[in-house]
Amino acid sequence: MNAPLPAHLLPLLAARAVPAAMLDALQTRFGARCSTALAVREQHGRDESPFDVPPPEVVVYCESTEDVAAVVSLAAQHAVPVIPFGTGSSLEGHLLAVQGGVSIDLSRMHRMVAIQPEDLTVTVQAGVTRKQLNDEIRHTGLFFPIDPGADASLGGMSATRASGTNAVRYGTMRENVLGLTVVTASGEVIHTGTRARKSSAGYDLTRLMVGSEGTLGVMTEITLRLYPLPEAVLAAICTFPSIDAAVRTTIQTIQMGVPIARCELLDAHAVRAVNRHDKLTLTEAPMLLMEFHGSAASVKEQADTVQQIAIDFGGAGFEWATTPEERTKLWTARHHAYFAGMQLKPGCRTVTTDTCVPISHLAECVVQASIEAEAAGLLHYIVGHVGDGNFHIAYLIDPKIPAERETAERLNDAVVARAIQFDGTCTGEHGIGLHKQGFLIDEAGAGTVAMMRTVKHALDPKNIMNPGKIFAF
Amino acid sequence: MNAPLPAHLLPLLAARAVPAAMLDALQTRFGARCSTALAVREQHGRDESPFDVPPPEVVVYCESTEDVAAVVSLAAQHAVPVIPFGTGSSLEGHLLAVQGGVSIDLSRMHRMVAIQPEDLTVTVQAGVTRKQLNDEIRHTGLFFPIDPGADASLGGMSATRASGTNAVRYGTMRENVLGLTVVTASGEVIHTGTRARKSSAGYDLTRLMVGSEGTLGVMTEITLRLYPLPEAVLAAICTFPSIDAAVRTTIQTIQMGVPIARCELLDAHAVRAVNRHDKLTLTEAPMLLMEFHGSAASVKEQADTVQQIAIDFGGAGFEWATTPEERTKLWTARHHAYFAGMQLKPGCRTVTTDTCVPISHLAECVVQASIEAEAAGLLHYIVGHVGDGNFHIAYLIDPKIPAERETAERLNDAVVARAIQFDGTCTGEHGIGLHKQGFLIDEAGAGTVAMMRTVKHALDPKNIMNPGKIFAF
Repeated sequence: MNAPLPAHLLPLLAARAVPAAMLDALQTRFGARCSTALAVREQHGRDESPFDVPPPEVVVYCESTEDVAAVVSLAAQHAVPVIPFGTGSSLEGHLLAVQGGVSIDLSRMHRMVAIQPEDLTVTVQAGVTRKQLNDEIRHTGLFFPIDPGADASLGGMSATRASGTNAVRYGTMRENVLGLTVVTASGEVIHTGTRARKSSAGYDLTRLMVGSEGTLGVMTEITLRLYPLPEAVLAAICTFPSIDAAVRTTIQTIQMGVPIARCELLDAHAVRAVNRHDKLTLTEAPMLLMEFHGSAASVKEQADTVQQIAIDFGGAGFEWATTPEERTKLWTARHHAYFAGMQLKPGCRTVTTDTCVPISHLAECVVQASIEAEAAGLLHYIVGHVGDGNFHIAYLIDPKIPAERETAERLNDAVVARAIQFDGTCTGEHGIGLHKQGFLIDEAGAGTVAMMRTVKHALDPKNIMNPGKIFAF
Repeated sequence: MNAPLPAHLLPLLAARAVPAAMLDALQTRFGARCSTALAVREQHGRDESPFDVPPPEVVVYCESTEDVAAVVSLAAQHAVPVIPFGTGSSLEGHLLAVQGGVSIDLSRMHRMVAIQPEDLTVTVQAGVTRKQLNDEIRHTGLFFPIDPGADASLGGMSATRASGTNAVRYGTMRENVLGLTVVTASGEVIHTGTRARKSSAGYDLTRLMVGSEGTLGVMTEITLRLYPLPEAVLAAICTFPSIDAAVRTTIQTIQMGVPIARCELLDAHAVRAVNRHDKLTLTEAPMLLMEFHGSAASVKEQADTVQQIAIDFGGAGFEWATTPEERTKLWTARHHAYFAGMQLKPGCRTVTTDTCVPISHLAECVVQASIEAEAAGLLHYIVGHVGDGNFHIAYLIDPKIPAERETAERLNDAVVARAIQFDGTCTGEHGIGLHKQGFLIDEAGAGTVAMMRTVKHALDPKNIMNPGKIFAF
């Protein structure tokens, strides 16, 4: 049902077998936590990406940094690949065992290591998910803002440099990971960063690891910044006559420096999808879903400013959601957009773009993407973290009709080319994985990617850490 | 007059001579922009650090990325060290030519490459200083917030991961450099990052370079985030009965999530110094100098909140500075603190600490540092970007009295040990350079520093990029 790997990636598929001695050692140490059952392997051999490749040979459920170090030490000794696995929600094939090896399942590493509300910091094991984290710290009056669509693990979010709807105000994982415990490619345990808010102490290994997609080491513990829950929160929706009008409202809001906390675009298709999925009755037109954080007076002031901008661009049907229940309903619907969208076309798979561009070029980029998708006649929807210049157009394709995938890829190519032309990026938050390796070279240049590969080779000389991701060869 | 290098660093001083062929090539290409005059070399062989080492053998004034690439290519061919030089304001010996070689003076690379106010971004050559940048963009209604004490170059600020008084609200160079043009150790020119606000496209080479102190490449062009000038700005000073009370006011302000833009501590000695230097009449007691940015209503609200907190801790003598002239006077005085402090003891040198700690431990760290310095009878003053948990205690030492330097180093050791004990960092914004290499190992651990060295060795196999900095051997 899924797609094969693109032809140029097929040579990757040279599995490196787990030798019997290593399997014995894993089974001795981990017992039932080491599995070679096909169903377990298959569950760990896929993610939300469209590709079908053979599953990993072994799955090991780790419960501590020492567990992970033990697996990686064996893998280093036997030159066998390891792939960290959190919740399986990667969109870019990060979890696919293109060269076989061991899937290191971190989902049982779901312990809060330390909560320091007085410092606005927390340390978690890598398998803690974003929702669990916020549940665990609710009593402190603090929250962690980064919210990709899925209830992903903090390890996976760090590995892909994830963001979500709050990044326009609070930054991404890049800005919010203070320190890491990392198992290196030799199986050694190191610590990067501190709990201080800033530091000039040597190379920024924390940020080298964040976004490295499991290719430089396994992050096992993560120290994060937290934020006080805002005194007041105000959410608002507003409907626009066109995508262009909605995006231009966003651009002006950002240019004026309004400290908006969330600013999400949904096109008419996306609104239709969440209406169906969440039984809502939102007007099926381009919509901004916004949120303001601050004091009561400040959120009112921010909202008034943005409402005036929106009206200037033809925005209408302003609705305010001030109670937590109303807000939760709206944001839950937004977070369901990915699965809601898939239900627009039962049995479909999605090909999702993830470009992020300088804000002044956003309207052109979103509008052109929409026009091209409509012209191609391919079912799609658009959602966007537009305050950041980041948007996703999801093409819904029938996996049994290869021409639909080809059309989607062609449209995606155009969206990415346009982003790069405007000095933007091919991926704002999903990562490179298997799918975007060509785009990375287009964006960064061969010399820059060569420097990344030099770093990879130095830190992982046997190429055992999630091989084939970011760059295949 | 200055100090010799510490004994353990002396083996570093093995100069690698610039061969005649390389000198010829430099003179041919650069003419009068290549100098071997002793006065020029000496000017480029020192910074604000206390160490005396021989100057570089050659100074080359570069005017373009291509110029820098030409110098580095020759240096790579002949295995000769290169040291980027901006304004010479490093505090940690970054500019000292411990192994001879070529000082690459970037101060003539002071061109604005591109200003995109509509995207809140700007690209500058590395020699542009922070004040020049803000002058050049004044007409756009935007500003660049990072402000180390000196009018440093953006290249130098990137190299040391600088911050300053606005970091509590706007972040440091880590958060505000979007992309770079870099001349690598082989003389190749690469580009990192884009103008998009966020990206998940491969390894974060931008942040690997930021803070690398010239040891991985020469940054020649820098793309930065800008911010709209706030609609309203309100500065305030408040005097406290003790350092502890001032810092506790800060801690509570941060814990409550007040979006304060600047929050600076001056101890009584620092206030006395700026009073003398800037002919002010501030009360000579521990003082917070604060600034609030936002709408008129919002800054008033923030200031009221902080004033109430301050009163609870015994703060008094609140004064508001609302006009740009009043504000400029206060902040200019703050920025003069380093030189004002030195005038407390004519002919002195300063040994300055730079620890940054989790905010709840800040009061203990600052108070202990003050008590220990008083007990040692060494003239000193304290200033701090306390909103970040970062403070500097500057010990004023007579360079002719070795015992004073020894006392200062001993006090510094205690301050750093305490910061590390509380999971903080030995350097919040000045960098490691020559002076803090032992502290880096104490803080990060030998394994983590070994990983940094692996990256260094991979990207600069001939060790020509500012050798001896961050790690000596």
